[in-house]
Amino acid sequence: MSGYFITVEGGEGVGKSSNLGFIESWLREAGKDVVMTREPGGTALGEKIRELLLDAGQNNMMVDTELLLMFAARAQHLEEVIKPALAEDRWVVCDRFTDATYAYQGGGRGVDFQRIAQLEQWAQGNLRPDLTLLLDMPVQQGLQRAGRRSAPDRFEREQQHFFERVRETYLIRARQEPGRFRVIDAAPALEQVQQQITAVLSVLI
Amino acid sequence: MSGYFITVEGGEGVGKSSNLGFIESWLREAGKDVVMTREPGGTALGEKIRELLLDAGQNNMMVDTELLLMFAARAQHLEEVIKPALAEDRWVVCDRFTDATYAYQGGGRGVDFQRIAQLEQWAQGNLRPDLTLLLDMPVQQGLQRAGRRSAPDRFEREQQHFFERVRETYLIRARQEPGRFRVIDAAPALEQVQQQITAVLSVLI
Repeated sequence: MSGYFITVEGGEGVGKSSNLGFIESWLREAGKDVVMTREPGGTALGEKIRELLLDAGQNNMMVDTELLLMFAARAQHLEEVIKPALAEDRWVVCDRFTDATYAYQGGGRGVDFQRIAQLEQWAQGNLRPDLTLLLDMPVQQGLQRAGRRSAPDRFEREQQHFFERVRETYLIRARQEPGRFRVIDAAPALEQVQQQITAVLSVLI
Repeated sequence: MSGYFITVEGGEGVGKSSNLGFIESWLREAGKDVVMTREPGGTALGEKIRELLLDAGQNNMMVDTELLLMFAARAQHLEEVIKPALAEDRWVVCDRFTDATYAYQGGGRGVDFQRIAQLEQWAQGNLRPDLTLLLDMPVQQGLQRAGRRSAPDRFEREQQHFFERVRETYLIRARQEPGRFRVIDAAPALEQVQQQITAVLSVLI
């Protein structure tokens, strides 16, 4: 693969959508052929799986089921979108990827990280993102921002301590893989966040 | 677990439905507390996953995706239905289980058996059926019977050589695990098939 694979991660309300739009514009202006995508989803079939995962009516979903559905959507996404784009030298920017599985299912729900790693290896082989931008801010601040939006889905209903574990897991992973991760302080005003993102992206170009 | 876990396997048109009804009646008359279930499906969520798997419109589903969806439905089924029933000393009779994954995805689609075994171990740990009844008949005969029914779904559209590989894989697995499998010749008239099934079940009671 000769393209470049960027993932954008973060908890609720950290401003992923605005910043994804910024990253897309910035890379296009830098002349890159950019593919914007997201997980869970990213394909027609993956979006149907996403509907099952986010459906607040599914209050009896087992953690193993959730994990396998996540990786089912991911396997489809990899083969149908990500790998073909990278093979064509394109830049793939993905809204959440496997780090989110470690953070939400592992940190949040308490699934053994080793079990996640087994599925990661099974579904991805050695494919990992080239760069992961972690948008980080205090949980309370993020939940307040997210609360301004529509009715909570199944994940958003979780309690604050769940999101504290999600954030902590993201930060631990960032410390474990400093070569791949860049932690962006997402707490200040959008313009300051985008200055940090620009600094990271400028190094790549 | 102190219940008893029976799975019924076989290719297209081998008469699973009729024989499942017979097995249920026979066990109930023998005084057993029977739970009849099926895969993929067996739970409300599993049935939604089954819809995705059988949807003839999903003509771009990757083999890894298919496999992960199968095991997602299975994980839900195990935790929500099978394990609780076995823990209550009930007899679980399941229309297809993991042997079908080896036969259809492994034998039929060519997925590496080792990759299936990894997911089996991941999702089931050491849980395996106590008894597997394999209804076997020549592929051509089964397809002719199945052809009498409704419009073909995504699996039924496959070519005959696909189903030859499915049958062969089932038979190989039966030879590899003779303690668990009983091969039932499903080609003759229903009454004769049921005599064979009765002979197998009688030993259990």
